[in-house]
Amino acid sequence: MLKPSRLDHVALAVTDVPAAVRWWTEHFACRVKYADATWAQLDFENTSLALVTEGQHPLHLGFLVPDASAYGKAQTHRDGTKSVYAQAPGGAIEYVERPTTSSP
Amino acid sequence: MLKPSRLDHVALAVTDVPAAVRWWTEHFACRVKYADATWAQLDFENTSLALVTEGQHPLHLGFLVPDASAYGKAQTHRDGTKSVYAQAPGGAIEYVERPTTSSP
Repeated sequence: MLKPSRLDHVALAVTDVPAAVRWWTEHFACRVKYADATWAQLDFENTSLALVTEGQHPLHLGFLVPDASAYGKAQTHRDGTKSVYAQAPGGAIEYVERPTTSSP
Repeated sequence: MLKPSRLDHVALAVTDVPAAVRWWTEHFACRVKYADATWAQLDFENTSLALVTEGQHPLHLGFLVPDASAYGKAQTHRDGTKSVYAQAPGGAIEYVERPTTSSP
């Protein structure tokens, strides 16, 4: 199995997602890829930050993989990604498979 | 002040740093930049993971900045970085200034 090497995102739990989006965009040069009342994705230069409401997903590090199902039973998320959560020394991780985009 | 955009590292607290280094290098394609009994830095494709012993530094996200002192009173670390810790919605962050390397 190919060993992942790219940190796709870090997910942080916040009490108020819209307020957190305002704070992060005010202090950091990041682009709001998606935001609603319960979830936001901020794209930074080299990775992304996911802001989620507390209790939805624990804090975790998501690593990009070509095939999430190679790591267990994959769940499909509303943004089209498939993933498997696992436990690593130091915290939770997520093996993330992004939807394939067709080549030009 | 320039808004940071690059995630320099994510720091995770672990109970046993050498055992954690073994686990992470077994499961991920990452390079051990530094490792001792209390601290390790693993370089991934697009960012780094710092493994620290519990209680040393809380879990945090470190963002690269040109001048850490612009964010408060900077402390100098044993790896030559200077940084300022702060609180963000979702958790602790660190504004990290890397030592300047001379151009070739």
